Amino acid sequence: MTEAFFGKIALIGIGLIGSSIARDVKARGLAKEVSISTRSTGTLKRAEELGLGTSYTVSAADAVKDADLVIVSVPVGASGAVAEQIAPSLKKGAILTDVGSTKASVIAQMQPHVPEGVHFIPGHPLAGTEKSGPDAGFEGLFAGRWCIFTPVAETDPAALAKLRAFWEALGSKVDEMDPQHHDKVLAIVSHLPHIIAYNIVGTADDLETVTQSEVIKYSASGFRDFTRLAASDPTMWRDVCLHNRDAILEMLARFSEDLAYLQRAIRWGEGDKLFDLFTRTREIRRSIIQAGQDVDAPDFGRHGTSQKS
Amino acid sequence: MTEAFFGKIALIGIGLIGSSIARDVKARGLAKEVSISTRSTGTLKRAEELGLGTSYTVSAADAVKDADLVIVSVPVGASGAVAEQIAPSLKKGAILTDVGSTKASVIAQMQPHVPEGVHFIPGHPLAGTEKSGPDAGFEGLFAGRWCIFTPVAETDPAALAKLRAFWEALGSKVDEMDPQHHDKVLAIVSHLPHIIAYNIVGTADDLETVTQSEVIKYSASGFRDFTRLAASDPTMWRDVCLHNRDAILEMLARFSEDLAYLQRAIRWGEGDKLFDLFTRTREIRRSIIQAGQDVDAPDFGRHGTSQKS
Repeated sequence: MTEAFFGKIALIGIGLIGSSIARDVKARGLAKEVSISTRSTGTLKRAEELGLGTSYTVSAADAVKDADLVIVSVPVGASGAVAEQIAPSLKKGAILTDVGSTKASVIAQMQPHVPEGVHFIPGHPLAGTEKSGPDAGFEGLFAGRWCIFTPVAETDPAALAKLRAFWEALGSKVDEMDPQHHDKVLAIVSHLPHIIAYNIVGTADDLETVTQSEVIKYSASGFRDFTRLAASDPTMWRDVCLHNRDAILEMLARFSEDLAYLQRAIRWGEGDKLFDLFTRTREIRRSIIQAGQDVDAPDFGRHGTSQKS
Repeated sequence: MTEAFFGKIALIGIGLIGSSIARDVKARGLAKEVSISTRSTGTLKRAEELGLGTSYTVSAADAVKDADLVIVSVPVGASGAVAEQIAPSLKKGAILTDVGSTKASVIAQMQPHVPEGVHFIPGHPLAGTEKSGPDAGFEGLFAGRWCIFTPVAETDPAALAKLRAFWEALGSKVDEMDPQHHDKVLAIVSHLPHIIAYNIVGTADDLETVTQSEVIKYSASGFRDFTRLAASDPTMWRDVCLHNRDAILEMLARFSEDLAYLQRAIRWGEGDKLFDLFTRTREIRRSIIQAGQDVDAPDFGRHGTSQKS
């Protein structure tokens, strides 16, 4: 029995992230019982069909009873309501964590409800795809990916070590960070890219001079890259925007300022300014590949498939 | 001997596109002779080492002598100068084409130099990767991809049919379009995505509150997708910006307007507006996959590789 083992794990929310955790827990034998709860009866039924847990209920409060580890994987806007529902049923000594993409807001929503004796450790696995729902999850989603904890002041070191061991058993690398800093980092590496992607796809969809069928037909020229991010779960991303507002607005302001500079350079034919930026950005790509954070294969290695299209 | 066969093909410029054409011509036996010309002696030497042609020269004018098909694959800003250099040496009856990402500007630059009896057919294969140079090219780059011709008024139908047969022999699907319309379509499906990608990578690089090493470390959360486009050839993209200025500025203005709307919705917590956009964009992704223009695999199918990182 490893340090990462729990008698009972409760998974509140069973979408892409929750169901991937469930699959890993099962495959690695990290719990005796896995209770699964989600508000949607359809999704709950699907989770049961997929055999993701050992018990299923629409009541989050029922699911967390006797659980040693509770993982909340819901859109961040629902964190507070979930915490309120489960609080009276949480076992003393249990670890309560989440997987939300924003941390300050989740802490503000959940912390007030956490009973004494329950170890609340906010977390965020930086993993996922543009797909959503219990069928989108898969074993190994977290392997080699970062999981960021943003522990609160009173966090128990033993509980922290145990949760760390759990994520490491899923293959993750664990980092710790201040919640405000987490929210700024994620605003630039994740939230802004998604918002920009959603925006450009919307812009293209609204054009009158270029038809939508042309946009689709010729999308391999660059546009299609953005459509992947813009196909992500709308509820999750609405909540991220609303719950990391300040950091996102700060990054958006900088982005727009830089874009205005670029736009002016294009208007006035200032080729040197364009060339300088386009050269500098190439270096960042190189560093990302060197750091093992992306594949080096041209076109994400998808060429082999796309050329058949 | 197929309709796509030429006695001699001259390739002016031997980067990603030129060298991919050279590889396909060789593999499919589409020419008896292939003369290669580029201004850089280093690149020319490399092309010879790779065995891409049958003769090599820094003089574009020498390369095109007796050629039945001349393909200019240089940054669009250099099209006029190349046309001027090769004009006196072009064979009567030869087909002259290019692969530039902007068409109105290329036509304005090249057309005045084209001698009578030479068939000038502007073209644009929508294919490429973020890599550049003769080593980046590969056989099959154009297979299943669109090649857009923007024929000028006086284009000879027989020459057009022969060039079409050539690109089809490379596996391309050929379309025809008005040059101005081409430039608008490409502004949204290709130029704007690249400019936005360059811009966001620049914004991230300039932050003080988030370090560059953090941006790189956590880039898998969305940001890395943009770095691929932002690693494209700086000279090529500077020229695209300068030579498709009006269409790009129009698309940029729309994009910025839409982004301001989104920004305001975030500031004022208008979740419905965000949700509506984020739902609408998902449909476009679905259409692109249905049209066979991207892979359906989550995360471009790169997960298998990236999870090992």
